Amino acid sequence: MGDVNGVGPEVLAKALARAEVWAQCRPVVVGSAGILDEAGRDVAGFPGVRAVGRLEEAAFVGEGCPVLDGGFGAPAYRPGTLDAEAGRCAVEWVKLAVQWAMGGEVAGVVTCPINKEGIHRAGCRYAGHTDLIAAMTSSPDYRMCLFAGPMRVVHNTGHCSLLEAIAAVTQARVAGSIRIGHEALVRLGLPQRRIAVAALNPHAGEAGAFGSESAAIIGPAVEACQAAGMACSGPHPADTVFRRMRAGEFELVVAMYHDQGHIPMKLIAMDEGVNVTLGIPIVRTSVDHGTAYDIAGKGVAREESLCAAIALAAEFAGHG
Amino acid sequence: MGDVNGVGPEVLAKALARAEVWAQCRPVVVGSAGILDEAGRDVAGFPGVRAVGRLEEAAFVGEGCPVLDGGFGAPAYRPGTLDAEAGRCAVEWVKLAVQWAMGGEVAGVVTCPINKEGIHRAGCRYAGHTDLIAAMTSSPDYRMCLFAGPMRVVHNTGHCSLLEAIAAVTQARVAGSIRIGHEALVRLGLPQRRIAVAALNPHAGEAGAFGSESAAIIGPAVEACQAAGMACSGPHPADTVFRRMRAGEFELVVAMYHDQGHIPMKLIAMDEGVNVTLGIPIVRTSVDHGTAYDIAGKGVAREESLCAAIALAAEFAGHG
Repeated sequence: MGDVNGVGPEVLAKALARAEVWAQCRPVVVGSAGILDEAGRDVAGFPGVRAVGRLEEAAFVGEGCPVLDGGFGAPAYRPGTLDAEAGRCAVEWVKLAVQWAMGGEVAGVVTCPINKEGIHRAGCRYAGHTDLIAAMTSSPDYRMCLFAGPMRVVHNTGHCSLLEAIAAVTQARVAGSIRIGHEALVRLGLPQRRIAVAALNPHAGEAGAFGSESAAIIGPAVEACQAAGMACSGPHPADTVFRRMRAGEFELVVAMYHDQGHIPMKLIAMDEGVNVTLGIPIVRTSVDHGTAYDIAGKGVAREESLCAAIALAAEFAGHG
Repeated sequence: MGDVNGVGPEVLAKALARAEVWAQCRPVVVGSAGILDEAGRDVAGFPGVRAVGRLEEAAFVGEGCPVLDGGFGAPAYRPGTLDAEAGRCAVEWVKLAVQWAMGGEVAGVVTCPINKEGIHRAGCRYAGHTDLIAAMTSSPDYRMCLFAGPMRVVHNTGHCSLLEAIAAVTQARVAGSIRIGHEALVRLGLPQRRIAVAALNPHAGEAGAFGSESAAIIGPAVEACQAAGMACSGPHPADTVFRRMRAGEFELVVAMYHDQGHIPMKLIAMDEGVNVTLGIPIVRTSVDHGTAYDIAGKGVAREESLCAAIALAAEFAGHG
């Protein structure tokens, strides 16, 4: 459910009102049953909630969506309000979900947005969901990815400065990003798995005139992965590679840094974007937006990203 | 005309066949009259050519578009072929046009694509038009810009490595980029001149967690320009600032490096994009595509970018 005072409860209620979500998976909400019920009050088709105490109870088909709070009852529902207790509950809920996933009790985890300041006030030292989940699953070599329909981006690095991102453009790490992307495409059962690796420098370095990283580091990483049987190519100039993926030339792009992938993906797929964590032992997707306190509780938040996140998690789990 | 064996002659013939171009300006082509005539043979509405020896002759209204080669007759027309002589002519033609502009004999210069390898083979040491024009006009502090309708980007740096681009994120240079962008908006006569400055690091550095450049360097540059009366703001997270400009929130974005601006602009405005050089004493725009040897002479090249480049140059010149 994420932060109860963000748009999480609302988009959750709207998503659960869609029949397609129930056709794709058997959802269990980890969060507050009372707040989800309240958020769903004006949502047409919302199936209602069924508070359960243990995951086993969620397996029984019954009325409403099973909701479990793991003993962490949420504070009062005050949309748009930063609250340490809401942050604490959000953290405990995601921990519970990840534990289930690690134990094979659920097929995957989909997260609604949390507020960084909120979880910090609650004493959680992580930058967000992704870092927490990577730590919980002992996955130092994870990758932050954005998927939106036929557009997929694996980021070589995520939340760090651009200078740190450049330092992380090593042959081993870039090859790791390609491999992680390739494995995701295999898992999704795609018949074609063409991966384009974006260059670090403009014009892919223009034969060394604008930097040597492309030729000296990214090129050999691509070649090593090609030798291992992956359909990768590059480094490609970053200012046209996303357009080429959009036109159907590639199934996935490996971006060298956060904004290189986020700028194009947010520009053309704000509503249907899904944040995916790859390189971890569980299926985990997330909405690609924040708590949006400014519109929380106003009934205008859109559920498209959550629906896409649920669909993608189901797809990964089904082919797993 | 650019490289005669690229798509230049063809897009030029197609643009000259549009009445709107003649309504916006009085065009003089610097290039080969014979090749333009040949390229326009199958173009409906192409007005034909009129070879002239001196610029003064172009002032007389007569039949066809005035074309002047300055004594540099082009080689045979062989579309798609790399040719040092074509490179040499392209360089001499642009030099002639820039000299006219510097002398006030023409109101602006619009360039068709040249081939870097071609001009290098002809002994020209510049990376391209922009560097050559900056050198000819003694303009060390120029900026490479992309304009596409209501979307405008000034790049703090252009053709250099990403590491060099980071090193060029200094308070003085960023303030210079903002000022150059502001002056362009003033010159275009826009009533609103809101400039968004993009951050260097993801999430605008997330309060220092992902790099300090945003707060320590870009912030003060923005404040200095605000104090000077410019409607600038930022640093803004780069992964949403272009979407915000597209939605009408800003008239211009200052990008910190080549790909930061080129990725979004090429994604949403490939055909209508115009390359503009600001910070030089003459009006200069260019098509936002290359010679495209692969499609040269096949009749399929699109003239939209050249038409947009001509319209923008006329706009800059008219308000100058």
